[in-house]
Amino acid sequence: MLTYPLEERGGLPLYEYLYRRIRADILAGTLAVGERLPSKRQLAEHLHVSVITVENAYAQLEAEGYVFAKPKRGFFVAPVVPLPAPPPSPPLPSIPVPKAAWRLDLKRTQVDASRFPVATWARLTRQVLSEDSGALLRPVPQQGLPALRQAIAEDLRDYKGMAVSPEQIVVGAGAEYLYLLLAQLLGREAVFAVEDPGYPKIRLVYEACGAVCRPVPLDTRGIDMDALAVAGANIVHISPSHHYPTGLVTPIGRRQELLQWADRTGGTIIEDDYDSEFRFSGRPIPTLQSIDSSGRVIYMNTFSQTISPSMRMGFMVLPPQLLARYRRDLGFYACTVPALEQHVLARFLSGGHYEQHLSRMRKEYRVRRDRVLDAFRSSPFADRISISEQGAGLHFLLRLETVRSDEALRRQAQTLGVRLGFLSEYAAVPSAAYAHTLVVNYAGLAAEQLPEAMALLAQIFAE
Amino acid sequence: MLTYPLEERGGLPLYEYLYRRIRADILAGTLAVGERLPSKRQLAEHLHVSVITVENAYAQLEAEGYVFAKPKRGFFVAPVVPLPAPPPSPPLPSIPVPKAAWRLDLKRTQVDASRFPVATWARLTRQVLSEDSGALLRPVPQQGLPALRQAIAEDLRDYKGMAVSPEQIVVGAGAEYLYLLLAQLLGREAVFAVEDPGYPKIRLVYEACGAVCRPVPLDTRGIDMDALAVAGANIVHISPSHHYPTGLVTPIGRRQELLQWADRTGGTIIEDDYDSEFRFSGRPIPTLQSIDSSGRVIYMNTFSQTISPSMRMGFMVLPPQLLARYRRDLGFYACTVPALEQHVLARFLSGGHYEQHLSRMRKEYRVRRDRVLDAFRSSPFADRISISEQGAGLHFLLRLETVRSDEALRRQAQTLGVRLGFLSEYAAVPSAAYAHTLVVNYAGLAAEQLPEAMALLAQIFAE
Repeated sequence: MLTYPLEERGGLPLYEYLYRRIRADILAGTLAVGERLPSKRQLAEHLHVSVITVENAYAQLEAEGYVFAKPKRGFFVAPVVPLPAPPPSPPLPSIPVPKAAWRLDLKRTQVDASRFPVATWARLTRQVLSEDSGALLRPVPQQGLPALRQAIAEDLRDYKGMAVSPEQIVVGAGAEYLYLLLAQLLGREAVFAVEDPGYPKIRLVYEACGAVCRPVPLDTRGIDMDALAVAGANIVHISPSHHYPTGLVTPIGRRQELLQWADRTGGTIIEDDYDSEFRFSGRPIPTLQSIDSSGRVIYMNTFSQTISPSMRMGFMVLPPQLLARYRRDLGFYACTVPALEQHVLARFLSGGHYEQHLSRMRKEYRVRRDRVLDAFRSSPFADRISISEQGAGLHFLLRLETVRSDEALRRQAQTLGVRLGFLSEYAAVPSAAYAHTLVVNYAGLAAEQLPEAMALLAQIFAE
Repeated sequence: MLTYPLEERGGLPLYEYLYRRIRADILAGTLAVGERLPSKRQLAEHLHVSVITVENAYAQLEAEGYVFAKPKRGFFVAPVVPLPAPPPSPPLPSIPVPKAAWRLDLKRTQVDASRFPVATWARLTRQVLSEDSGALLRPVPQQGLPALRQAIAEDLRDYKGMAVSPEQIVVGAGAEYLYLLLAQLLGREAVFAVEDPGYPKIRLVYEACGAVCRPVPLDTRGIDMDALAVAGANIVHISPSHHYPTGLVTPIGRRQELLQWADRTGGTIIEDDYDSEFRFSGRPIPTLQSIDSSGRVIYMNTFSQTISPSMRMGFMVLPPQLLARYRRDLGFYACTVPALEQHVLARFLSGGHYEQHLSRMRKEYRVRRDRVLDAFRSSPFADRISISEQGAGLHFLLRLETVRSDEALRRQAQTLGVRLGFLSEYAAVPSAAYAHTLVVNYAGLAAEQLPEAMALLAQIFAE
């Protein structure tokens, strides 16, 4: 008969102690496979516990498969291999700790989230939760909350002159997630042309999905059409309003050539409009989507730059044919953005708060950019740099006259606590044309930092 | 000289009207490629507008590439092809409207979100926003907010006996997104064995990612080991705690065989623990992860069933080797869950609200299940059904004695406004063994609905 020192059970309930001891005996082989356990009543009497205690212990052993019941005959030990106890866990790779803050970081795309009207967002969140707390829990349609898609369509109409139906809009958890969906939507036989140099994550995501990516060089007007023609791609992913990192704006003539390429080859254009909101003067550049008469352009944008990268919300606008394919092939995917965020963003957009915020940020960034450009132009190294800047976006290119390599400059900067980004890092195919060119992300540069920043750069840029 | 009737500009600013008219003339070919535009001053005088107005119009045309400037010579028309105006948009496929509510829906997995403590969640949300409104905007580490991963690790330790470091946890926007990551992490040469019958989205996502899926049949103890051996898979995706839709719990002996399979073949086990929280008696079934001594098990779970499907939050626990691979190959992916949700869930977990909610829901669902089982057992068709139920989860199987086909039953049910789900629908490889077996998702069935539900089913099940 099984005998266990019940007084040694510590804080465990009786049934759990009993279950653990029997389980240990089964795993150790002390109780052999096929052996019959004492009846519940016998064991209860033997151990001076209630039948219910034994019953619960046996039930747990049965649920986990350590024992099995034969009707009217009782419980038997199930086939179990003695397994070694898990060894002490090996040390885990530790999460890369964010580097000690840089004295000056010109590489990281910095959005000044501190200007975001958090109070308004918090108020709208409280509003949604108090007026309609069920909003938190009700399932959201696969393409996103109808009210949000409506608000996005209206914003696109009012501020970008785009005629888009809310039904064409697919909401997703940020640009990278939308890239993932596009890689699946467009098929694995698709060949993606990507801008070279370009935003590296585009290629990383497509390639992680198994798609073939062909880097296509740029000329002064955007993606090179001759190179595109020989790339054998049927998809081209571009940022015609403001290319990262060169800042290039694709002129209307090249846009037309791109549309003609798509028409001629049956290709698809992904228009990644990631920061078109930050154009500092005049009207926004009309999107390719708005002059596409053949349904060949997928438009996409996110709220990462305009609200905050931690928001994780973007959307794409699918032309009718791809929309039908999306619903057929990928309609099973649930929307990846929480319902609450969608309700709040819908109110933030339709209440005019979004455009108000953008308008404030445009002014703010323009002032910042002017200050930064002034600082560079009156710096000790002013006669050795040339800046190319398109009145848009949160970065510009700075070409430095130097004989030193990018790597040497980067290393020296590092010793001074300065992080530099170089155009050459964004290129898939190296070219001497990219050398000595910094990508300056200025949006995080406050006025009071500028004197120190210029002094540091003067040290680094010194011959 | 360009002449436009400025009085016809309607509400447009002068510069924008001028820009539009010149753009139209360029697109129509009225202004030929290479033609020189009048100087700003000439045109301003001619049209009786300010030079600034013309300057702004020219600047916009230049930004969009309709004209280009030659230093000291003025603006010239750029090469632009006349493009037809976009035709009126074709009708868009309309978003599938949710079907008129069913009188009785036994197919949809229903979580009773109405019992969720929305007030507590709302309070925690307000707390985060008022104590630390920056939480909304600060970037979140790629694997998820440290406080949330800590809270998840503690919950796994306290309620599932799992020893997991927060560093092993990756937070993502729901189970489907985690499947996407796993498909990429495990490589495209991976062959996934999936349970047949099983939860269909698992296969859909893996296949959408280009992975090969091999459906492997089940025996009475879970996935069939002989069939697994010949499937040629190196990954097996299973739900050993409570299989969907059969409800099967994999006993310890089969779990050990699975671990041995993984050790022997170098394979990986994905343990999808999607509803283990709803076990109605005894202790939770220990996870495979907790008896894995070789780092072969990836554990994953979500908050979709326990909080709400509209929450879009799940997590996985990677063993050390795969964690290192994840950071190397997929570390570029930003975390897909908004920062705010992560802060609130971290507090919801660490404040004990989550386990309190689960404990309430377990009681509630057990009562509901008992009531539903009672209703079936005292129904007019009680002697023609057999129910298999494992004291867990939000669904059970009901086998009906009938000569009619599943399809005939489904059609008749539909005419009565009843939605039935059949085991056969979850099978990749058809088998007569699955026939006449309903998957009953009972969690949404309220007590007052039961008499009508049984009356409707009696009509459908009548011979």
